[in-house]
Amino acid sequence: MTKNDIKTIQSLKQTKCRRQHGVFVVEGTKLINELIDSNFQIHDILITEQWADKNIDFLKKIKGYEFVTQKQMEQMTNFVTAPGILATAAIPSYKISPDDAKGEMVLALDGINDPGNLGTIIRTADWFGIRKIVTSEDCADIWQPKTLQATMGSIFRTMVVEVDLEKFIADAQGVPVYGALMEGENIFNKKMPNAQGIIIIGSESHGIRKNILPFVTESIHIPRAVGSKTESLNAAIAAAIIMAFMAKGV
Amino acid sequence: MTKNDIKTIQSLKQTKCRRQHGVFVVEGTKLINELIDSNFQIHDILITEQWADKNIDFLKKIKGYEFVTQKQMEQMTNFVTAPGILATAAIPSYKISPDDAKGEMVLALDGINDPGNLGTIIRTADWFGIRKIVTSEDCADIWQPKTLQATMGSIFRTMVVEVDLEKFIADAQGVPVYGALMEGENIFNKKMPNAQGIIIIGSESHGIRKNILPFVTESIHIPRAVGSKTESLNAAIAAAIIMAFMAKGV
Repeated sequence: MTKNDIKTIQSLKQTKCRRQHGVFVVEGTKLINELIDSNFQIHDILITEQWADKNIDFLKKIKGYEFVTQKQMEQMTNFVTAPGILATAAIPSYKISPDDAKGEMVLALDGINDPGNLGTIIRTADWFGIRKIVTSEDCADIWQPKTLQATMGSIFRTMVVEVDLEKFIADAQGVPVYGALMEGENIFNKKMPNAQGIIIIGSESHGIRKNILPFVTESIHIPRAVGSKTESLNAAIAAAIIMAFMAKGV
Repeated sequence: MTKNDIKTIQSLKQTKCRRQHGVFVVEGTKLINELIDSNFQIHDILITEQWADKNIDFLKKIKGYEFVTQKQMEQMTNFVTAPGILATAAIPSYKISPDDAKGEMVLALDGINDPGNLGTIIRTADWFGIRKIVTSEDCADIWQPKTLQATMGSIFRTMVVEVDLEKFIADAQGVPVYGALMEGENIFNKKMPNAQGIIIIGSESHGIRKNILPFVTESIHIPRAVGSKTESLNAAIAAAIIMAFMAKGV
């Protein structure tokens, strides 16, 4: 690793540089194990000797790794304590078409700006078999460490693509578009076959945005207990409950 | 505020000192608004002039506040950027008895050590009308800033009490004890009246612990989509889905 290589990897801490290079950073044994098992194009796998000593079996699985010093790793890591294994990989160039919502469920995220929530939603979607996820341009960046960590590896098994959300949903013709709204129909009573359509998840602060609202054809609501004064559910929690009821095909 | 007063509030950043003093710190306009509306015993409300200038209407609602300098606030805050309003309040001394599970649902958290997850679970429980929550001794501290923030104020409307979890559940006689287990019954098909009982939520890393497992009378499972390779759901997500199906009273 030259000084310049290290600088390049350091620069990938910024969303702008990740986009420019089309590359992102993955850290930690669990995530890199999932990366290796995926179809993602891996550029570099960098490890420290300390990590190698503790992971002899896993090391056999890795083709073409390179050793770096503890100090170099500390310069590159996104964590307070460097896990000791770091990889770079190409940001995939998936395409999700509005027509895809004709044969399966597509999840549409409108302004989810908390990386932990974004990652958790991707993980939950993967659990319930939703593999295509589109995000509005102001969602948290998918390829940042906090999002990746929260996906627990589901980022390597789903397709997550940033789109012009209004255009995407406008172009999705003839499929149900589900959206959680205060005045929506009680989700506990609603029939929601999970064959096809779009589920829109709004942000915690603004809900589903005004320009997206007119496209909602199936307005749903997660009922609050009588007497509860809670204002809202966390966005990842609301998304999970909707996906669970959808999976049940009530 | 004397230097000593500030030191005392600073010390409350530590769980040990919060327990010793029986006092915790609340920050930010939203949470303190909820604190004022609650039955919690408030000790001090400290504000900066900058905060006061921007919150003239809210200020009228607060009885007995005290001004501190921006510098003093920065010494006391738990945030990178101090919200400008900080309160101290007594940690409540609720009691939740195992017999309480005879007339309502009680949530039991077994080793939830992520403060964000813990707070989110409390918020979701409040939404679904579960007001009594017991936590094992190794859960994240309830009264720390990250947990409080994630509850979004639900901490002031629910009862959350740390207990000897094994003893608590052993003492709860004649009520259903629900636990999510891999080999449990499909939650989508199970009848779960929400009249009474205990719902146990295990930690993400260990699940429900061995000493607690024998007390589970109703083993449930959130089914994963066919072909999904996700290992698990986030603990707060699993808890939310269980509570939603319980609330539905399927």
